[in-house]
Amino acid sequence: MSENRSPDQAQDALQRMVQALRALPGVGPKSAQRMAFHLLQHDRNGAAVLGQSLLDAVNHIQHCSSCNTFSELNICTTCSDDRRDPSILCVVETPADQLMVEQTLTYKGLYFVLMGRLSPLDGLGPNEIHLDRLIERVEKSPIPVKEVVLATNFTSEGEATAHYIGEIMKVRDIKVSRIARGVPVGGELEYVDASTLARAMMDRRSVS
Amino acid sequence: MSENRSPDQAQDALQRMVQALRALPGVGPKSAQRMAFHLLQHDRNGAAVLGQSLLDAVNHIQHCSSCNTFSELNICTTCSDDRRDPSILCVVETPADQLMVEQTLTYKGLYFVLMGRLSPLDGLGPNEIHLDRLIERVEKSPIPVKEVVLATNFTSEGEATAHYIGEIMKVRDIKVSRIARGVPVGGELEYVDASTLARAMMDRRSVS
Repeated sequence: MSENRSPDQAQDALQRMVQALRALPGVGPKSAQRMAFHLLQHDRNGAAVLGQSLLDAVNHIQHCSSCNTFSELNICTTCSDDRRDPSILCVVETPADQLMVEQTLTYKGLYFVLMGRLSPLDGLGPNEIHLDRLIERVEKSPIPVKEVVLATNFTSEGEATAHYIGEIMKVRDIKVSRIARGVPVGGELEYVDASTLARAMMDRRSVS
Repeated sequence: MSENRSPDQAQDALQRMVQALRALPGVGPKSAQRMAFHLLQHDRNGAAVLGQSLLDAVNHIQHCSSCNTFSELNICTTCSDDRRDPSILCVVETPADQLMVEQTLTYKGLYFVLMGRLSPLDGLGPNEIHLDRLIERVEKSPIPVKEVVLATNFTSEGEATAHYIGEIMKVRDIKVSRIARGVPVGGELEYVDASTLARAMMDRRSVS
């Protein structure tokens, strides 16, 4: 309680907190207020930890200069892990996608994180998502990249991005692959949409 | 980019940030990750402002010693506003409820914010929600409180709280009122639940 603060400042810390919470995606005025009241009433320690961790993150986290993911280091731990195969490069849209691929435990190559996707309608072309960095990454790799695995989303933007990067890699004589589309594991045909099932039918594999 | 940080610290700032975001109500692991990536990629300034505002709020915001709402001052601006009628006291559950009543522009008395409600099933009795503070507020008021308006929620907990406080005030010869229940403004009878309509029927007013 600071008695020496003027009444004009009285509502400020709370109002600023509510306003600042709206920087979070999907948080409107009502949610921001609810969050602020919850933190002040039930979890002041959590609020203090969150505040400090946000400042730490903003001050220390940059992009890995090799794979472009978020990292506090110039070269992230994944890129500097010498147990990984540097001849294969998986291209994903976001660090969240990278984490999902990592969780499968099926991939032991390196990554390149686009931090976006081609989306001409939003004004995001090859320059905006810095595809030159991916090209530089591939061309200047100390150990040549033999295969690029395109793991962008199966949305129209993700598909366009995959196609565009595929063309770039093909002219450089690098093998290009795309992760498989089809019926999800545990999926029931009755509930799968027609285009997924159509693709699963077209991409059917021989059972040996 | 801090080159002198060890690899062990490398993921820490990001992981700590994601973990800390889970202190927010309704934010699970996936949402926390999405929020963290969003802030780092698209709104670093917003994250810095949010971080600082949380620390400021935790350090400066306490409870008004008169009405118990959140305030940076010992006595909040509402309680110290001499244009308000100190003989009437509106009891609400939360600061959010207080803001809602304020927005109606129909109430010019003072408030008492319970910061909770009676909820025996959750172990919240009269002592846990500090009803002694409300009693002290009423008994030690420099200008006597003539009326207490009960504006707790119309949930079973809110109703029980209103009833309990009502009994406390009645033995002290203070007039007790409850905000009206009924069909909401703009409400259509077809879509109002039966118990609301029943209450609206019982509480019908003569049209003069």
